[in-house]
Amino acid sequence: MRDFSADLAHLAINTATLRKQLALPAILEACARRGIRRVCPWRDQVASAGLASVARHLKDAGLGLSGYCRGGFFPAADAAGLRAALDDNRRAVDEAKTLGAPCLVLVVGALPGALQGRPAHNDIALARAQVVDGIAATLAYARQVGMPLAIEPLHPMQAADRACINTTEHALDICDALDASQTGALGVAIDVYHTWWDPKLESQIARAGHERLLAYHVCDWLLPTRDLLNDRGMMGDGIVELQKIRGFVEAAGYAGPAEVEIFSERWWSTPAAAVLDTCVARYHTVV
Amino acid sequence: MRDFSADLAHLAINTATLRKQLALPAILEACARRGIRRVCPWRDQVASAGLASVARHLKDAGLGLSGYCRGGFFPAADAAGLRAALDDNRRAVDEAKTLGAPCLVLVVGALPGALQGRPAHNDIALARAQVVDGIAATLAYARQVGMPLAIEPLHPMQAADRACINTTEHALDICDALDASQTGALGVAIDVYHTWWDPKLESQIARAGHERLLAYHVCDWLLPTRDLLNDRGMMGDGIVELQKIRGFVEAAGYAGPAEVEIFSERWWSTPAAAVLDTCVARYHTVV
Repeated sequence: MRDFSADLAHLAINTATLRKQLALPAILEACARRGIRRVCPWRDQVASAGLASVARHLKDAGLGLSGYCRGGFFPAADAAGLRAALDDNRRAVDEAKTLGAPCLVLVVGALPGALQGRPAHNDIALARAQVVDGIAATLAYARQVGMPLAIEPLHPMQAADRACINTTEHALDICDALDASQTGALGVAIDVYHTWWDPKLESQIARAGHERLLAYHVCDWLLPTRDLLNDRGMMGDGIVELQKIRGFVEAAGYAGPAEVEIFSERWWSTPAAAVLDTCVARYHTVV
Repeated sequence: MRDFSADLAHLAINTATLRKQLALPAILEACARRGIRRVCPWRDQVASAGLASVARHLKDAGLGLSGYCRGGFFPAADAAGLRAALDDNRRAVDEAKTLGAPCLVLVVGALPGALQGRPAHNDIALARAQVVDGIAATLAYARQVGMPLAIEPLHPMQAADRACINTTEHALDICDALDASQTGALGVAIDVYHTWWDPKLESQIARAGHERLLAYHVCDWLLPTRDLLNDRGMMGDGIVELQKIRGFVEAAGYAGPAEVEIFSERWWSTPAAAVLDTCVARYHTVV
């Protein structure tokens, strides 16, 4: 395994980790000041700061991307909604390209309207079929542009409202269906928070292999976990076997960064400098 | 599929559904009064009421069991803890036999100490190995007594603290390992709350088949879900495809009851009569 103790070569910060403390330009500055080389920004943060401005800022600061968050949310209650989702994903691909992202992360969506508490239906098989169709359509465009798509399996507790692809195996089955020759155009984003529990995690990461392991996200699972969305832990504060899982992805050929993505009311209420300093310290010691 | 609209032949009530309103004898009376024929009591409720007294009460009221909750919690931090868990499971088997249960439900346990927020370690593979050993040892005794064991895969959000068996596939792999000839001594309890999200649910239920489908639990998944443990929904109030999943288990040969098990602060703060009346109404219409 790679040595993370000596420098920050393989650390990336997902900018949602600081979304409540700072605007994107300030996050980029804070990362660059610490010698962090890569970030994964969210579309809403980029939109607020201006796409061209962010692209310039990244270049000037010598910052690269570990990914771009996010495309997806393909299922919809009607044809107009499905079309709108495809249009939006096309824009996300374009933005990812403009920013020089290595991949666009897909949070694929689930029951339409569920995130608002008003699901249009509860047919998860239909939602899954629409997800496959949506990825297929987006992939056709993303191939032209040269932007890999990374399906992120989300934790099953988010299956109804955020993503109905909830295991690495399921995500890889879709990769097999849509990119059988493993061109690297379609792969997965492995987030330890969503996948640590999976008894097939090691074997499925091995199955994914270098061509399909497009991103690796870290945080931790707290005991107790008090919220289904915003109670993620800082690496080392929970029970995820971080180094074991990093061993799995590196054994499969992953050579990219470990991206810290923490949705947490606790860490969002901590000063940004302290959060980043803790991320750096934990990256060196427990990631 | 069986017709649930006409009578209560296939309804069972897991007594945890009313645990904060009533003691077990009062729960049994309330069920019997409504013509409900089966219950699944919890060990702590039985212990409070007295095992012999509960057995007599069940007989006098003409109530049968749909299962007995619960054995399990096999992993431990040391040898003494592992032994104590086996002793306790043996007692659970005996109690289940005394009460005439068709199966003892196993919530297998996970990282020792995690439920108290102080995990002794975070090696989930070790916990899983201890679970298999614990089931094997308990099964040897349960076979003698003639008490089937039902492994209940819990939702992955409970993998760290309650059960590290989180998919039907994983549970069935253990059944294959420990009871290859499918004698009926070891099987699974399918709870829609824990399993609805699983893309392999239908195929794994078919794989389980009649011999291994020992229990079927219903409630619903709410949007939003506000707590990882005690925010289950009444059937029909959430997004679980209840009739579709019942179709899966019946197609595989399951002929037992649909057992209502709702852990919910909301329903625990509702008068017991109203909860039971709602269970009956939803059983007729949406289960």
